Formats: sequence, C-alpha cells, structure tokens
Amino acid sequence: MKNFTLCNPTKIYFGKGQIASLSEALGNYKNILITYGKGSIKQNGIYDQVIAQLKGRIFTEFGGIEANPTYETLMQAVEIVRTKKIDFILSVGGGSVLDGTKFIAAAVNYAGDPWEILQNSVFSANHIPLKNALPFGCILTLPGTGSEMNSGSVISRKTTGDKLAFVDPVVYPKFSILDPTTTYSLPLNQTCNGIVDAFIHVIEQYLTYPVNAPLQDRLAEGILLTFIEEAPKVLQNPHDYDARANIMWCATLALNGYLSAGVPEDWTSHIIGHELTAKYGLDHAQTLAVVLPSVLRIKKQQKKAKLLQYASRVWQINDGNDDHKIEKAIIKTEEFFRSLHKKIKLSEYGIGTDAVEAVITKLHQHGFTKLGEHQDITLEVSAEILRMSL
Amino acid sequence: MKNFTLCNPTKIYFGKGQIASLSEALGNYKNILITYGKGSIKQNGIYDQVIAQLKGRIFTEFGGIEANPTYETLMQAVEIVRTKKIDFILSVGGGSVLDGTKFIAAAVNYAGDPWEILQNSVFSANHIPLKNALPFGCILTLPGTGSEMNSGSVISRKTTGDKLAFVDPVVYPKFSILDPTTTYSLPLNQTCNGIVDAFIHVIEQYLTYPVNAPLQDRLAEGILLTFIEEAPKVLQNPHDYDARANIMWCATLALNGYLSAGVPEDWTSHIIGHELTAKYGLDHAQTLAVVLPSVLRIKKQQKKAKLLQYASRVWQINDGNDDHKIEKAIIKTEEFFRSLHKKIKLSEYGIGTDAVEAVITKLHQHGFTKLGEHQDITLEVSAEILRMSL
Repeated sequence: MKNFTLCNPTKIYFGKGQIASLSEALGNYKNILITYGKGSIKQNGIYDQVIAQLKGRIFTEFGGIEANPTYETLMQAVEIVRTKKIDFILSVGGGSVLDGTKFIAAAVNYAGDPWEILQNSVFSANHIPLKNALPFGCILTLPGTGSEMNSGSVISRKTTGDKLAFVDPVVYPKFSILDPTTTYSLPLNQTCNGIVDAFIHVIEQYLTYPVNAPLQDRLAEGILLTFIEEAPKVLQNPHDYDARANIMWCATLALNGYLSAGVPEDWTSHIIGHELTAKYGLDHAQTLAVVLPSVLRIKKQQKKAKLLQYASRVWQINDGNDDHKIEKAIIKTEEFFRSLHKKIKLSEYGIGTDAVEAVITKLHQHGFTKLGEHQDITLEVSAEILRMSL
Repeated sequence: MKNFTLCNPTKIYFGKGQIASLSEALGNYKNILITYGKGSIKQNGIYDQVIAQLKGRIFTEFGGIEANPTYETLMQAVEIVRTKKIDFILSVGGGSVLDGTKFIAAAVNYAGDPWEILQNSVFSANHIPLKNALPFGCILTLPGTGSEMNSGSVISRKTTGDKLAFVDPVVYPKFSILDPTTTYSLPLNQTCNGIVDAFIHVIEQYLTYPVNAPLQDRLAEGILLTFIEEAPKVLQNPHDYDARANIMWCATLALNGYLSAGVPEDWTSHIIGHELTAKYGLDHAQTLAVVLPSVLRIKKQQKKAKLLQYASRVWQINDGNDDHKIEKAIIKTEEFFRSLHKKIKLSEYGIGTDAVEAVITKLHQHGFTKLGEHQDITLEVSAEILRMSL
C-alpha cells in the first residue's frame, strides 16, 4: 500500500425524508443563496420541501446552472453573493449544480480572476492552494459525480471551449442530504449517465497495477458489483427505493477518497472525456463510455494483473487465456454501458477523425501530456486511444 | 437500507514515516500533553520521533495509562491539563491510551463529576450530549479498537468494577497518524488481540438481518477476508510491511462509521465482554472470542440469512443444509480465533458458573436488559449466552 492522507469532513444525511433535516444542518447561517439547474426541482416537490425548511432565514435563488456549469454563468452568481452578503450557498440538484456551487464558493473571496482557480489547480504545474471558500451544502437529486462528498469540481468556459477541474480541501460541502426518493423522477438518460460516471470513477482508481491493498480492491469490486446488480432494477422500476438508495450510496463512495487511499490512479478517460465534451457537447458519461474501453485495451499489458482480477471477481470470467479473459471483461463492460443506453464509439455520435487532432491540441494546451498511473500516456498514446474510440 | 447520518472529520496520515507529519498536524497548538501507556514507546524509538517533531512547543508527559484505562488514573491527567493550561493532547499508543485521552479531553471542561459522561452516554436512558472537548490527536501503535477514527471510548472504574463506553461527536481525534512500522515491535499477544477485536467489530455490524444494503455487506466481507488472509502473514513475519499496513487500515475501517451506516447492529458480545473484563481482568479480545460464538449460536434463527451469507462469502462454505453451514462457519470463526492464540471458553481461563450471576448483576445495574438488533437479548438470554460460553 502507498502512503496517503485522508480527511473527509462532509456530513451525510441519507434516506427517505432527510430534507426535513435541512434546518438543523444549516445551523446559524441566515442569508442563503439557493443554486439550482433548469428548474425541475420546482416540478417534483423538492423546492417546496426546501423552502419549508428555510423559515426564519433570508434566501435568494440562482437558477439556470448548466449541465456542464460555465464560468460565465457562475460569475453572475459570484456577483450576487458579494452584493447580497450571502453567508451560505445551498446547492439543490445534481453534480453540475454542486460543482458550480463549489466554484462560486471558492471565487467569492478570490483575489484575482477566479478562472485562475482552474488554471492553478492541483492538476497544473503551478498549483496554488485556495485560502478559503464560502461555506455551502447540498441536496443531491442526481447521483453520479460524487461531488456531494468530495472536494472536486469541473468547470467549463464557453468562450474558450475549456473544461477543467479543481480539487481543494476548502470545497468539501458542510453537509449533503441524499434522499433516494428525489431521484425517482429523473429522466432515464440522467439515471444512466450517473451510473456510468460513477462506475468509471471506480475503474479509474482500481484498474492500474497491484500495490497489495486488498481492502481497497474489495471496496472497488463491491461498488462495481452493486452497480451491476442494481442498475437493471431501477431501469425496470424507477421507484425501487432500495435500488435507488444503493446506487446513490455507491456513487458517493465511488469518489469520496476512500477508494483512492493508498493506491495508484489513472484518470485518462476523464481527462480525454472532458475535452470531448468541451468540443462536441457530448454528455460527460457518453464520453467516458467511449474512451474507457480504448484506454483499457491499449494499456492491457501494464494493467494485466488488475484486469484479470476484474474479469474474475466482477464478471466471473475464469476460462481461457489471459488475453481472452481481458478482452471478454472489456466487452462485458461495454455491454453494461450499452444496457445503460450508452454508445461506445465516437462515430455513433457522428464524430470523425478530425476529433483526434482537435482533442490532442486541447490536451497539449492544458498540459495533459503525460497521463495514466505510469505517466506514460503521452499525446501520441492519447491520439491512439482516440483513434481506437472512433 | 435504513436512514443514517455520517460525519467523520478525523484526518488520517497513513504509512511509513508519517510521524514526520506530526508538526504540520499539530498546527498552532503550543502546549501539549503527551499521553502514553507503560512506556514501550521509549524503547522502540517512537518517543524520539515524536519529541523531534515538538520543537518550539511546550510539552508535558503523562504515562501509565492502563490497558483498560481507569477513571482514577485519568482524573490525575485532567488535573494536570487544567493546572498547566494544556491546549492539545497527543495520545501515543494503542486504543486504550486513546480512549483514555478522549475521556480526559471530555472531562477537562465538564461541569460536574466526569463519571457522568459514562453514566449519561448515548447508551443510557438519560443521554446528555457533551458540549465540547479539548482537541486531541493520536499516533497509533496498536491497531484494533478503531478509536483512531471514531468518537467512542471505553473507560473502567476500579473502585466500582464498572467498564462503560461513551460515544460523542466532540471526541473525534483531530488527526491520527498510522505508521504500520510502529507495530513491528508489538508483543504477539497484542497483535492478535487487535485483530480479534476488529474482526468482531465487523461481525457486530454485519451479522444481524438483511436490509438490502449490499455495499455495506461487501465492505464488511472485504475487511473480514483481508484479516483472514493477512493475519497469518504477520504471525509468520512481524516485519511484513504490507500485512501490517493492511491490518492497520482494516482495523480503522472496521469501526469508523462506514460499516454501520444504514444497517442494524448487535453489540451484545462487546457489552457482555466489558463486564467480563471488569470482573475477571480478561483482555478485551479474550472476552469477545469467548462470547461471540455463543451469541451467534443462540441467535442463529434470527441471524440465519446473514450467517449463511457469511458462511458462503467469507468461508466458502456452500455444502450441506443450513444448520450445518451455519455451525461450520461458527467453528471456522473459532478456529480463526484459536489461530490468534485465543481461548474460546471461559473455563479455559478458570472461570466457572459463578460468572453467570456476577455478569448478569452488572448488566442489570448498567441497564443492559435488552440487547441485540431486535432488542430481544434479555438478561435471561444473556445468562444463556454466558452458560454456553463456560
């Protein structure tokens, strides 16, 4: 096992009816900005439950945060927070609203252009840690990103076609309320996207090379197996409480720091995927379902030991030679994505060979010239991954 | 899955050499009380590493905290903290030193007799939450209790023969430093005790009844399987870094709130075990290894579904009828305890039938008249458990 540090202070309120804990969770904060997305919370009853909990507090609303939250939109909220002297932001929605909220919280007291938060993130060569952020909490209505219990956020910039991430301990939510019943009314596509995103979060912390960390491996396999079992149940019956609850909790644990503690990570699929979304507007999960299988195929020698473990423990593939078992496990993974209505090739989205150069240019511009657990996914290898994904 | 709340703010520094992070972890605290046990830290080099990190701070030492830390000893430390205006306590040792430190931290500003902290704990009918505690951190040298990443503590009182627990969010450690190399020099008996204690922590959050929480089940099974695999390695080679690291991390996750999130729990073995230690001075793990198998046998009908799952997934027992599989799994569990040099009957410790009445009297006195996930382990059932454990 590798050395690690781990500290996750977010308080989780999990289960049916937990929005009733909101007033308690907000404590002494008095001047709240409610952030949300397209406004589905006003149709499905969640908004009313939230407002009922805000008695005795002042609140302002900021709706319209996009599926890939943009710097341009979020800076409008930053202005409101500054003008109205907001002391707490409450994100009501999925991972995009929450990622946007994290950026707002970090930008409010940032001296300089807040876009630097992305440019000087932990992923850049010039990392500058953040000094502080406004406190914020979350009512999660779409499981997938894991943002509800981590300190990461992904922000897009329309004018430049960038999509970049930042991770900083100051942007852990103070609390996250996870009520599985709020996910009953999600469109099928969003339910599926969330599962694919979280499934691939696990893979990216699991399919690298062995470091003798058997508990982390089993936690990863436990989440993957649970997704595989529970996903068909919610497709069959969107009101299956237990399946919704299990998927919601798995998605949270998929990216709250416990899986990655002490093991190598390979975020290649996410990094290439972000560029594809920024360039072509594909959903985040759509890009991942296309890129991941190619990453696994191209790096199958380096990832061999873990791929064989994945084949055996997650897909019960134990027959045939190693190459056969690995290929079968990747095909099973693709079939799982297909069952969640994801395409697995860029050409199915009408995207052609031009994508290779376009994405490579952006990866180069963002400094992503060495990816993967061995830092050996150069731009040439990324180009190969993209060509294989066409 | 049941509703739950979860918040674990302790920062973990895990791995070889992490004591070098102590100065950073202590931040601005200046006036430190170092708590420790019998003084083995002065023989094995840990004390020197700690002192090297305390440059520029004032520190006082308080050694001699017992294996079952006592109110009488700890109140001496409370007096020192008050007199010297200590602002941070650093526990260096195992779970007993840390449990004692939690009590000191909670007692310092407690208005009234601090023994009330135990009497009015969350386990009592008159629960009074604590208002605050002095901040404290930990350098863990003996994995087992899980105290390094939870808010629980068990304290004994010599004059009355009591051993009681309290759990309160104010006593999460600010940080815990877990360096597996500090466990190389542990006596065999302490290594084994720690593994048995943590293994049974998992069982008590796992072997109840199914609530459709497959991820929690798999995390529990993952920890149990890892203990079963790694324990023989440290017995064979006490300097096996990876095995020591895996055991240390498993013991932490066995009781940091993640396993119990959303599932029923049955702490009968611990509660009866505490009374046995208080009365007869047996090691904590010795009592658990004796009591647990009887709890499982007596409650095998109520625990049937989970016992069969345990038999299959943890011990690969899939043949025979249900009763046979369950009994075989319990025997496997006893054999595992035996492999860790634990006896499995009270008579092996020279304890006879008198124990039944003595322990039942204490359980009654402490209000433990309904134990288990169904609250149906009355004093009569506890007596039956004790008789079966003779």
